[in-house]
Amino acid sequence: MTHSEHAQRRCLASEHLAERKADALVITSLANVRYLTGFTGSNGLVLLLRDRALLFTDPRYGLQAAGETDCKVHVERGPLNLAAAALLRRKAIRRIGYEKGNLSHNSYLALDDRLPVSARLIPVEGLVENLRMVKSPAEMALIRRSVLTNSEAFSQTIPLVRPGVTELDLAAELEFRMRRLGAEKPSFESIVAFGPRSALPHASPTANRLTAGSLVLIDMGAFQDGYASDMTRMAYLGRPSARIRRLYRAVLEAQLAALAVVREGVTAETVDRAARRALARYDLERAFVHSTGHGLGLEIHEMPKLGRKDKTRLQAGMAVTIEPGVYLQELGGIRIEDTVAVTRDGCEILTPTSKELVVI
Amino acid sequence: MTHSEHAQRRCLASEHLAERKADALVITSLANVRYLTGFTGSNGLVLLLRDRALLFTDPRYGLQAAGETDCKVHVERGPLNLAAAALLRRKAIRRIGYEKGNLSHNSYLALDDRLPVSARLIPVEGLVENLRMVKSPAEMALIRRSVLTNSEAFSQTIPLVRPGVTELDLAAELEFRMRRLGAEKPSFESIVAFGPRSALPHASPTANRLTAGSLVLIDMGAFQDGYASDMTRMAYLGRPSARIRRLYRAVLEAQLAALAVVREGVTAETVDRAARRALARYDLERAFVHSTGHGLGLEIHEMPKLGRKDKTRLQAGMAVTIEPGVYLQELGGIRIEDTVAVTRDGCEILTPTSKELVVI
Repeated sequence: MTHSEHAQRRCLASEHLAERKADALVITSLANVRYLTGFTGSNGLVLLLRDRALLFTDPRYGLQAAGETDCKVHVERGPLNLAAAALLRRKAIRRIGYEKGNLSHNSYLALDDRLPVSARLIPVEGLVENLRMVKSPAEMALIRRSVLTNSEAFSQTIPLVRPGVTELDLAAELEFRMRRLGAEKPSFESIVAFGPRSALPHASPTANRLTAGSLVLIDMGAFQDGYASDMTRMAYLGRPSARIRRLYRAVLEAQLAALAVVREGVTAETVDRAARRALARYDLERAFVHSTGHGLGLEIHEMPKLGRKDKTRLQAGMAVTIEPGVYLQELGGIRIEDTVAVTRDGCEILTPTSKELVVI
Repeated sequence: MTHSEHAQRRCLASEHLAERKADALVITSLANVRYLTGFTGSNGLVLLLRDRALLFTDPRYGLQAAGETDCKVHVERGPLNLAAAALLRRKAIRRIGYEKGNLSHNSYLALDDRLPVSARLIPVEGLVENLRMVKSPAEMALIRRSVLTNSEAFSQTIPLVRPGVTELDLAAELEFRMRRLGAEKPSFESIVAFGPRSALPHASPTANRLTAGSLVLIDMGAFQDGYASDMTRMAYLGRPSARIRRLYRAVLEAQLAALAVVREGVTAETVDRAARRALARYDLERAFVHSTGHGLGLEIHEMPKLGRKDKTRLQAGMAVTIEPGVYLQELGGIRIEDTVAVTRDGCEILTPTSKELVVI
């Protein structure tokens, strides 16, 4: 990402202050801080003003911040929100927005305590997150690369799916290979679940060994240059029963049905409904216990949520997952997930990996 | 960890409600949730009452929670804090504590909105974190194992420190090896920094290639069965100059000086001061830009902080890091870090890895 892209984003974010009736915004989400400045450290705060922005960080990150951003940097020893409050006080800025979902109640009270009585704290929701929903071409290129790394790591690991391998072995291989391909880290704890454990939608890998007649669920993602990818694929060791094949087909139909309705202008809930309807035809709608997908970018879960009541209209340039699944306690779970880019006429499926059940 | 250890912790935590003048505590920190229940999912809330505790989670984790905890589980489709508020309302509980540093201001407002006007929200700080500071023998055994895994992964990777290797290559190897040895994941983003990049205390690994005459800083940790380890070691490719050797010696003396004062009853700031004084003898105190250490356990950073103004008295059973460092912009950084267990008479250094500069 170039400095000028970050500068443009700060400028655009500043423009949105007016409609929130704020003269400043205290930005405490690290993903938002990175989005606006390029700073990747673990302790940072951006004070967004009408005409400029300031990055606050601590001495551990002084050199790094200077190298990563063209935004003005304040290096502070104490809590960053208090340093920001002191500056707001000096500048006599009164209408001060804060990130409603990202500031702890504790920090809110500390901030409130340090501001002059004439100042007013205004809850602001999603100002930067709204900008982040639609990706720039440079961002989409990074997501595409993260997706390719992730799929390549999957392909390299599939030959190791053999009797006796453990969930932990496979998770370690997947993550090693994505790192070797340029990822910083997994975008979430990789899920590798055999047999009935695949019915836990967020199973942590264990030392369980793979035996014949088992489903294998692999849900994995990478962060590469800060951008996330996310994919789920299924394998089966042995000859899948007619029931497994039917379940697999139901989930695949649901995933394809959801993909078919994705395009600019459609609401998020419409996509979710398409997946649910397809599963209802197999009487499986109650076995689908989560949403159909979510946005992703600098975070693995971003807006929009492709869920039951989300009225957000999709826009070209959004990156979202499409991932219906069914979970049956005695048998296991099946989920199929791609990362896709929303376009004006539909979507581009970024994930190149085959969606057929991998029979081993 | 056994169910009975979790039940004991919940009982102890409930006993502390009285001194906080609360009849309930809404626990939103996931590490605290895990500590009290054993539940490892990414969405959970514990409602701690005087005589029992309830775990709230969402349908993705219903099966998993039932398997992991003996605590009563409520599976909810909506926000967990609202479900907890509804229960508090039904039971007419009035003095309701919340975790001051762990609840977003947004969630605070939502909670406040759903409780009857007669209810009062009481900020509570560190109730569970205080219990977590002192580890049980079972917890210390897990930390010890995490430390050994981490050191073994380091030892296996050191032979790969050769001219031309990249920071990313080494980070990938370290993390792969810790996983193969049983870790779930790194306890933080592994730091591998060559040459001047080692002056960034929290450098992310890059594609930089190692060349002769470079410092190599490796700061790594594992999470194994949920418990963290943390270690920093230094290598040098080539023949270190007298200046490098002198800097290394200064940091080692500071680390040993800090270790020498660790024991039950000593304040955290005393340990920090010992490291600073040792560096002052080399006129390096200004190059030490962070604290001397921190507690660790279910999180990589826990109380106490071994920093300038922390008056916490160390107790036997605490697990802390001791990690002074110096950072010089043109030359690089040097840090040496062990994980140690505080004892009545001193400390046990859990990290088995040699502290000599690894000259390659």
